[in-house]
Amino acid sequence: MPFINVKMAGPEPTKEQKQKLVEEMTDTMVRVLGKNRERVQIYIETYDASSIGSGGKTLEEIRKEQK
Amino acid sequence: MPFINVKMAGPEPTKEQKQKLVEEMTDTMVRVLGKNRERVQIYIETYDASSIGSGGKTLEEIRKEQK
Amino acid sequence: MPFINVKMAGPEPTKEQKQKLVEEMTDTMVRVLGKNRERVQIYIETYDASSIGSGGKTLEEIRKEQK
Amino acid sequence: MPFINVKMAGPEPTKEQKQKLVEEMTDTMVRVLGKNRERVQIYIETYDASSIGSGGKTLEEIRKEQK
Amino acid sequence: MPFINVKMAGPEPTKEQKQKLVEEMTDTMVRVLGKNRERVQIYIETYDASSIGSGGKTLEEIRKEQK
Amino acid sequence: MPFINVKMAGPEPTKEQKQKLVEEMTDTMVRVLGKNRERVQIYIETYDASSIGSGGKTLEEIRKEQK
Repeated sequence: MPFINVKMAGPEPTKEQKQKLVEEMTDTMVRVLGKNRERVQIYIETYDASSIGSGGKTLEEIRKEQK
Repeated sequence: MPFINVKMAGPEPTKEQKQKLVEEMTDTMVRVLGKNRERVQIYIETYDASSIGSGGKTLEEIRKEQK
Repeated sequence: MPFINVKMAGPEPTKEQKQKLVEEMTDTMVRVLGKNRERVQIYIETYDASSIGSGGKTLEEIRKEQK
Repeated sequence: MPFINVKMAGPEPTKEQKQKLVEEMTDTMVRVLGKNRERVQIYIETYDASSIGSGGKTLEEIRKEQK
Repeated sequence: MPFINVKMAGPEPTKEQKQKLVEEMTDTMVRVLGKNRERVQIYIETYDASSIGSGGKTLEEIRKEQK
Repeated sequence: MPFINVKMAGPEPTKEQKQKLVEEMTDTMVRVLGKNRERVQIYIETYDASSIGSGGKTLEEIRKEQK
C-alpha cells in the first residue's frame, strides 16, 4: 500500500527518467522497508517555476536573479 | 471541514462523472461519518500514464505490455 | 492506481466507519469511473481541531464559540 | 523544512499574485513559528472548476446556479 | 474552496501560534487572491525530526551534527 | 525544491530505515533528474492499518483474513 508523491519544478522529466525514478524508488521501498513491490504506487507532478516558492521568492524570480 | 483528494490516471473523467463522484463521496461522508455536507471539499486530479508508477513500472509501460 | 486521501477533524472514526468509508468510496470509483477495484488505495487522516482552520479561525475556536 | 501546498480553483493567479502569496506565507512561517526563511517551500496548484467539489456539487455547477 | 496544507517539523506549535497562522494565511488568500474567507480551509501537520529528510539526511541527523 | 511525500502502513520504520530511505531517494533525484541535493525535502508518514484501504477493504481487515 505504500504511496509516494513526488513534486518538482519543470521542465517535465522525460518518460525514461520517470521510468527510472519509479523503478529506483520502488526498489528502495522493497529493499529498505520490505514493502510489497506490487503495492507501491508513485505519482509524479511537475510545476511551473512561477508556482513554486522557496525562501520567500518564486523559483522563477530566483532563476532570473541567477542569470 | 473534511477534505478529499482523488488522484487517478487519465483519461480525464467527464464533467458528469466528476459531478457524480463529488455527489457520492459527499453522501458517504455525511451518512457514514455524520459530517456537515456544506463543509466537504473534494479535489480531483488526473495524471498522465507516464507519471504514475505501480509495482516498479510506469502505468504507460504496463499498458504497453498488456497490448 | 487511484489514490484517495481523506483528511478530517477528530474524533477518530471507529474501525467500522473507516471500513464503510473505504467500501463505499471504492464502489464509487468502480461504478462511476470504471476503475479496477483491486487498485484503489485510500488513506484516512484525522486531525486535532486546533490544527484545522476554516474562515480564518481554528475549528477549536469555532467549536468554543458555538457552545 | 516547512512545506506548504496551496490548492485553489482557477483562474490561474498572475505571477505577481503568486510572488506576493509566497512572500506573505513565508513571512508568516518566520514571524509566527520562527521557521528558517530559506527552508520554506511552497507549491501552488490551480484546478478547473469542474474538478473541485463543495457541499456535494462541483464548483462549476455552483457557479452556473449563481448566474 | 481554497485548501492549504502546512507540513513542518516539530515541536508542535502552540494553539495560539496555529490560530495566528490560520488567521494570517486566510488573510493572504483574501487580500492577494480575492478568495472567499469562509471557504478557506487549512490543515496543519507536525512531523518528528526523524521523519523529515533534507539534503539526503534526516532532520534528526542534521540537528545532532549541529550540536 | 523537489518534495517527496511517502505514506505507508505501520509499523513505524526504524530511524535507520528512515535515514536510508531519505539517503536513497535523494540520490535518485540527484542522479536520475539532476536535482540539487540540498533542496530535496522528504516527509515520511506511517498510518494505522485501520486507516488504509485497498481493494475496498481496510488493510486491517485484509491482514485478519490472511491469518
